Amino acid sequence: MATVFRSKLLISKLPPRLLLSRFLSNGSSNSDSAIGFIGLGNMGSPMAKNLIKSGHEIIIYDASRDVMDDLKQNGAETAQSPAEVASRSNRIITMLPSSPNVLEVYSGESGILKEVQENSLLVDCSTIDPAIAKDMSELASGKKAMYLDSPVSGGITAAAAGTLTFMVGGQSEGFKQAEQILQHMGKNVIHTGAVGTGQAAKICNNMLLAVSMIGTSEAMNLGMSLGLDAKMIAKIINSSSGRCWSSELYNPCPGVVEGVPSNNDYQGGFMSALMAKDLGLAQNASTSTKTATPMGSLAHQIFRIMCNKGYGQLDFGSVFKFLQDEGSK
Amino acid sequence: MATVFRSKLLISKLPPRLLLSRFLSNGSSNSDSAIGFIGLGNMGSPMAKNLIKSGHEIIIYDASRDVMDDLKQNGAETAQSPAEVASRSNRIITMLPSSPNVLEVYSGESGILKEVQENSLLVDCSTIDPAIAKDMSELASGKKAMYLDSPVSGGITAAAAGTLTFMVGGQSEGFKQAEQILQHMGKNVIHTGAVGTGQAAKICNNMLLAVSMIGTSEAMNLGMSLGLDAKMIAKIINSSSGRCWSSELYNPCPGVVEGVPSNNDYQGGFMSALMAKDLGLAQNASTSTKTATPMGSLAHQIFRIMCNKGYGQLDFGSVFKFLQDEGSK
Amino acid sequence: MATVFRSKLLISKLPPRLLLSRFLSNGSSNSDSAIGFIGLGNMGSPMAKNLIKSGHEIIIYDASRDVMDDLKQNGAETAQSPAEVASRSNRIITMLPSSPNVLEVYSGESGILKEVQENSLLVDCSTIDPAIAKDMSELASGKKAMYLDSPVSGGITAAAAGTLTFMVGGQSEGFKQAEQILQHMGKNVIHTGAVGTGQAAKICNNMLLAVSMIGTSEAMNLGMSLGLDAKMIAKIINSSSGRCWSSELYNPCPGVVEGVPSNNDYQGGFMSALMAKDLGLAQNASTSTKTATPMGSLAHQIFRIMCNKGYGQLDFGSVFKFLQDEGSK
Amino acid sequence: MATVFRSKLLISKLPPRLLLSRFLSNGSSNSDSAIGFIGLGNMGSPMAKNLIKSGHEIIIYDASRDVMDDLKQNGAETAQSPAEVASRSNRIITMLPSSPNVLEVYSGESGILKEVQENSLLVDCSTIDPAIAKDMSELASGKKAMYLDSPVSGGITAAAAGTLTFMVGGQSEGFKQAEQILQHMGKNVIHTGAVGTGQAAKICNNMLLAVSMIGTSEAMNLGMSLGLDAKMIAKIINSSSGRCWSSELYNPCPGVVEGVPSNNDYQGGFMSALMAKDLGLAQNASTSTKTATPMGSLAHQIFRIMCNKGYGQLDFGSVFKFLQDEGSK
Repeated sequence: MATVFRSKLLISKLPPRLLLSRFLSNGSSNSDSAIGFIGLGNMGSPMAKNLIKSGHEIIIYDASRDVMDDLKQNGAETAQSPAEVASRSNRIITMLPSSPNVLEVYSGESGILKEVQENSLLVDCSTIDPAIAKDMSELASGKKAMYLDSPVSGGITAAAAGTLTFMVGGQSEGFKQAEQILQHMGKNVIHTGAVGTGQAAKICNNMLLAVSMIGTSEAMNLGMSLGLDAKMIAKIINSSSGRCWSSELYNPCPGVVEGVPSNNDYQGGFMSALMAKDLGLAQNASTSTKTATPMGSLAHQIFRIMCNKGYGQLDFGSVFKFLQDEGSK
Repeated sequence: MATVFRSKLLISKLPPRLLLSRFLSNGSSNSDSAIGFIGLGNMGSPMAKNLIKSGHEIIIYDASRDVMDDLKQNGAETAQSPAEVASRSNRIITMLPSSPNVLEVYSGESGILKEVQENSLLVDCSTIDPAIAKDMSELASGKKAMYLDSPVSGGITAAAAGTLTFMVGGQSEGFKQAEQILQHMGKNVIHTGAVGTGQAAKICNNMLLAVSMIGTSEAMNLGMSLGLDAKMIAKIINSSSGRCWSSELYNPCPGVVEGVPSNNDYQGGFMSALMAKDLGLAQNASTSTKTATPMGSLAHQIFRIMCNKGYGQLDFGSVFKFLQDEGSK
Repeated sequence: MATVFRSKLLISKLPPRLLLSRFLSNGSSNSDSAIGFIGLGNMGSPMAKNLIKSGHEIIIYDASRDVMDDLKQNGAETAQSPAEVASRSNRIITMLPSSPNVLEVYSGESGILKEVQENSLLVDCSTIDPAIAKDMSELASGKKAMYLDSPVSGGITAAAAGTLTFMVGGQSEGFKQAEQILQHMGKNVIHTGAVGTGQAAKICNNMLLAVSMIGTSEAMNLGMSLGLDAKMIAKIINSSSGRCWSSELYNPCPGVVEGVPSNNDYQGGFMSALMAKDLGLAQNASTSTKTATPMGSLAHQIFRIMCNKGYGQLDFGSVFKFLQDEGSK
Repeated sequence: MATVFRSKLLISKLPPRLLLSRFLSNGSSNSDSAIGFIGLGNMGSPMAKNLIKSGHEIIIYDASRDVMDDLKQNGAETAQSPAEVASRSNRIITMLPSSPNVLEVYSGESGILKEVQENSLLVDCSTIDPAIAKDMSELASGKKAMYLDSPVSGGITAAAAGTLTFMVGGQSEGFKQAEQILQHMGKNVIHTGAVGTGQAAKICNNMLLAVSMIGTSEAMNLGMSLGLDAKMIAKIINSSSGRCWSSELYNPCPGVVEGVPSNNDYQGGFMSALMAKDLGLAQNASTSTKTATPMGSLAHQIFRIMCNKGYGQLDFGSVFKFLQDEGSK
């Protein structure tokens, strides 16, 4: 609800769309300059290293001095603020934890937009509210720059291996330029449509993932209560219509699939707290678009309760454990 | 709740288990006689025809005269009651709509158990409460017969094509005999464990199926509300962690997957009313085993409301339509 | 699902209803004999003592020797089985934990119905599945006795104080006789309709109670998260349309209402495990009557998870605590 | 999620809090001037008329010419914009449909804050996101004016009768001034705490109201399915622990309580679409504060589906009807 009208608040006197879509194709080329990279956490750091490996110069910024030092040793140049990155590079990747960080890094007092060069390409890989992505795009347009939302799937492992999937929302001209960069960090770079649709694709996928993970956990628990062997349940489901990624490749019941977090006390993997965050974004988007998502909503609540009860840092498959009877009736 | 203690009510003075497990292996063979078949509805009728095609003689009973006449023209012999079938055959298949029918056909006044022969094999393909299956097994044991629960998946199409999957619960000796018969009606015959586990496997799978179908519908609806193209959403999900049978092979959004009910106004397929029934069984089983199944429970309620609002005879993918905004705020 | 057809299994050759409704009014009087009382737990024991105080002789039975000894010192006579109670008394009260116990005590091998006298009045104060109540009524009718279901509200405190509310389902003639006895143990004796409706009234009330207790807990938690003082939230709600018994008289947030379990670490009161049981009965009844109860269903799941996580022995207001953030994200 | 960081975006260089809390008590008095009133819809119009009746001069603005003409005939003066109202009055009431309207009327191009006088009192009676209320308060403080959030309960009837309840969030000095005005339009004016807590109180109450209304509907439906008379169910509940405002004073089952919308085909009353809006605010607040509200969340989804299926303009008690079986299985 809150976000849908944000653009009304922020935009005023923007150049017409037609100008916007033309400005990046009028001869200028961004391809020679260093690439800016802001946000070097668990995801951003390995992504930036892959860019360096592919032969690119990068200029980095992160709120943490330590992570910058680490990248510096890999050959990165450093800047003192997002604004400085923007003043020295016209192609910038951002990878930030959540919407408020994106607002700060783009439109804060020393944010990118303070110093952004005309015709710059801004590729935001954070997972945020699609409405914020649209706002950032409008603000960038006001500075004759282009913003694309480009959230990723694959997690830390794929970030390190350079096999992420990028879901990119924004104009085609921008997508083509972004693809040249993103391909060095991932194996799939998909153009999902207008700006914001990258985020939309991400949260729709993750909402369904959460729903089917909880559903899988319930089916495994119920089957075992009814006397079925765990592997037998998984075998039946995976050869039937209940089959899903969670049951087949990431089964939350220990002992069913090798090498997944459920076999390692739910360490590693995709944390419940992050799933709760993504489900919150999905609920915000559902509310503002008046879309009915009863299962997604219940999934959000279940992961919220799990976070409240100490499961936040465990892999999201720990919902299997959360639902189990711990013997104290 | 109600069902867990049923066996206490029904059983008394049963022969010891050891005797039971021995009696079918003591030399007698059922393999030459005609096969009984009770329940010739949408599923039972094509199944029985496949048995005839495979060269077996069958003796049939159904409450409806008409369906018996149809099978008679295919070469079946008819009986006047389940009891008569039991008196003339020692291998009997039953395929009935729900638990009360199974009670009636097995333990009713002219039911199978009135006339069942010693060492008979009773294979019940109905989808019912696992606790009822266990009760029937106990009653059959009391008559020195063996009951197996063997619900199917695949629906009418697979019944006609002889490609059903059978999930068989019961003792191994019985399973081996049953497999000889069931293989003529299906492509997979799986031994799931003790009696009742066939039903357990079925309802666990269908519970997860319902959950992921609703989740898929929500993700499709939300993505479209956010400006994504329907096929694009499906493409992203199906190459990501949200992938499930419902999103990939049976997508509930019209125009995404060819040849599925969503492209035919949700005609054909697996009716919402039947899904509501299966989810009711899953809830009964969850309650009696004190298993937490929040998603399965909400799925049950959603299909119940759908039935109440006129979606009962539509394919269960119509939940996509049910959740959509019909323009009347 | 399982329970709806139960009567089909149990009843056969019952005397016609007309006879049944006549037999209690044909002149015989039960009013002079001792009253039987079976089930002397936390509820039954104080109830039986109130009966004794009111000047009645009682004949008791309980599975536990100890509780019988206690009542014996209060002047009760003892029996060795429900059947013996029935042979010595034609007015019997039963107060049992759940449906299986009722089945055992009424229709078990040494159950009431083995020795029940014609024209006996059987008043069952247990909270059980309404379908089981109907079954017991049918079985009693077969023995020319009358069974009434008469669950109570008010809990242990009201049982001791003799201020219970009885919700009595069954024929009017029986109700009038039962009222003479029940009035000594409660302040309200309500005739709810046909047999089974006492249970129906009880589970409908308790389902709504659970829903509004969880809703109250959420509203209190949310208000506090938003900076409101706990007593202020309660004050606003209780003078507005959110007002309910749970917010007003039994507020689950510590410090808001004096003398309730939330101020005593959720000790005493009505245990979550019992609420989970009642909600399970409500779900069974919803499923078998095809009634949509989405909130009741979610409430059931929440109390089930609470039981699984160690809240089973706490007052049901502890859902407030269960939902709270415990600081470990 | 989106709203929590909004203040970071909007505020900069605000005068210190201490100054803020002092400025209204430094001798100036607002009590003689005309009162501004912006937003004259179904609620605002009767409220403004009550202000006139109490002897106040008012200066009005509404986007609709017609509603202004109506009030003009009652003696109101008119202005051409919120800004003009602010230039002519230092005490302003606003009553607007939702958050975007509040943003427009306060911080839009011809909004109140463009022309607001120092020491003005701004009392916003709209029901909006508490985070927006805090933002408006910060913006007003920047202009040395004071903003209070003051949502109401009681609906159109109470607005006309002058018996509304006002839940006022903001500093005490402001509350005292506001109370002088609000008392002419309502019977209860409650100071709930800091700015935003008025909204918090409103959405907590309405969330619980929605939960208990759906719960009441389910209990009524289930009881009737089980053979209870509707009035009997209500009687039992209302004398037991399930009692709530919805069951007692606003029962959603036709024929139980006289004079409520359920007896008039759910015409009048509080529309489902408005309840869906309030529940959306509650969910936004739950998500941003990481509060678990599973029942509130499901209630939101149920009213969302109802809106999608054509119940949006009916009283929110129509959830009783929505859940009922319409006979088409």
